[in-house]
Amino acid sequence: MSRKSKEEIALIYQDLQDHICGQLELADGKGLFKEDKWDRAEGGGGKTRIFENGSILEKGGVAFSAVHGPMPEKIQSKLQVEKSNFFATGVSIVIHPKSPMVPIIHMNIRYFELDNGTHWFGGGIDLTPHYVDVNDARHFHQEVKDVCDLFDPAYYPKFKSLADDYFFIRHREETRGVGGIFYDRLSAENNSHFDQILNFSLAIGNLFPQVYSFFMKKNSSLPFGDAEKTWQNIRRGRYVEFNLVWDAGTKFGLDTNGRTESILMSMPPHAEWEYMHQTKEGSAEEFTLNHLKKGIDWLNFSL
Amino acid sequence: MSRKSKEEIALIYQDLQDHICGQLELADGKGLFKEDKWDRAEGGGGKTRIFENGSILEKGGVAFSAVHGPMPEKIQSKLQVEKSNFFATGVSIVIHPKSPMVPIIHMNIRYFELDNGTHWFGGGIDLTPHYVDVNDARHFHQEVKDVCDLFDPAYYPKFKSLADDYFFIRHREETRGVGGIFYDRLSAENNSHFDQILNFSLAIGNLFPQVYSFFMKKNSSLPFGDAEKTWQNIRRGRYVEFNLVWDAGTKFGLDTNGRTESILMSMPPHAEWEYMHQTKEGSAEEFTLNHLKKGIDWLNFSL
Repeated sequence: MSRKSKEEIALIYQDLQDHICGQLELADGKGLFKEDKWDRAEGGGGKTRIFENGSILEKGGVAFSAVHGPMPEKIQSKLQVEKSNFFATGVSIVIHPKSPMVPIIHMNIRYFELDNGTHWFGGGIDLTPHYVDVNDARHFHQEVKDVCDLFDPAYYPKFKSLADDYFFIRHREETRGVGGIFYDRLSAENNSHFDQILNFSLAIGNLFPQVYSFFMKKNSSLPFGDAEKTWQNIRRGRYVEFNLVWDAGTKFGLDTNGRTESILMSMPPHAEWEYMHQTKEGSAEEFTLNHLKKGIDWLNFSL
Repeated sequence: MSRKSKEEIALIYQDLQDHICGQLELADGKGLFKEDKWDRAEGGGGKTRIFENGSILEKGGVAFSAVHGPMPEKIQSKLQVEKSNFFATGVSIVIHPKSPMVPIIHMNIRYFELDNGTHWFGGGIDLTPHYVDVNDARHFHQEVKDVCDLFDPAYYPKFKSLADDYFFIRHREETRGVGGIFYDRLSAENNSHFDQILNFSLAIGNLFPQVYSFFMKKNSSLPFGDAEKTWQNIRRGRYVEFNLVWDAGTKFGLDTNGRTESILMSMPPHAEWEYMHQTKEGSAEEFTLNHLKKGIDWLNFSL
């Protein structure tokens, strides 16, 4: 049995992008994705799809790319691999909803291969509610765990812990949101294992529109006012801080002359900064800040 | 003749902070600074002064700090100096005006000293108009050059060029604004030279409220509408990108466990991101983008 080739993986990921965009358009009911195709001078390219001003979603991006060519010096030294031609493909998503009651979400799956056969998969999915809701966090983690468990019972605990460490705003000592899973450099031991990891990435990719449509439907009609919008904008400011200061993928892209607009499609439509913003005692905002911590076992969390 | 001590420099810089805050309050006519005093566990502290919701200024910070103690590992490896106790003091300013017709401004002066006598001054002042105005840029550069020339005719050309390189948003291939001056590791050869460099930093510090009050007065009554506010928010987004991705001071502060709120007082009150924002041909926005370039000789620029 032979494993899927890198070209096949790119095609499969591209189909996933189509599927996800269709599902999000269906769930939103108003907005439509616009496609921005781009070529990379050194080899490959991508399709960045952007959604603006929907009925539920304010701004979102679902990007596919498949790039290849000689390995740039900076990438080589960062990845600590042999100098070789490389191939990288992936789907990357960040969605900013209109309502502060609907969480921000991020999902990314990617595959990397060198001419010499070195390869790995990476990815993750994490939820960033503007207001932490314990039931939503539990539901999200349960869905993610269920998918992980189909492939390897060790995945969820390991990748959940990696997500807590990765999606962490160090200068605030806050997690970005309620976490999820993060994995990187997951390599296959044999062909069947390879297809299993590929399928795991696809299962995460397919979980994304399902679980996010659930939150869109459930939370978008919840009431909110100006105070909640302000808080949403402050939380979006934190999202900006994480992505520009700490996110390895963003830094790497900007540092290696990546396609700026595609990398920064994760930026929110609006964000705010207020000096020393204080939350009120006993407020939902304070509850949120108190639960942006590493190591919370959301599956078994009770108040 | 003995040179000023580090304690004296800190006192002089603190007085400068008072002077600047008073001048900005006078020019704004409505807003008042609030002071936030903080201590650093390892030694020293600062006074961060924040201005919010004035008549002309929307959000601004004028920070003074004087910190000392054993050199943290990360700072030592970054600065490439001997392990020693350090002392650092400075005044740092970023102002975001309400009107898109008034430029954003930044000014920073700082002094650094080690127990072994190693010392240097650093600093700069740069202007970030939301709309590039050739006369404003020329006026600003002329004022800065006049101050530089009082101390050393080599300063302006050298430090202007360093500012072009420093205040550069690499991933956009845009300068942050119309530049100004930037200098670092300026060390004295003898005591009289030391006081001369100190006085140069004070002259830049004193220029700041004078030149910015001029722009506040001249530009704050210029008309603008929603389109200009949107453009202002997009330019503020670029300011965020520069500060979080490229600004060495910000990165250094966040990376070495500095005081986050004081470091990020430079963040605008609001910012926006729009995917692939396009400017109209022949518009003031397009003119601005076309003039966010290195190496423009603003003193002799004509259309």
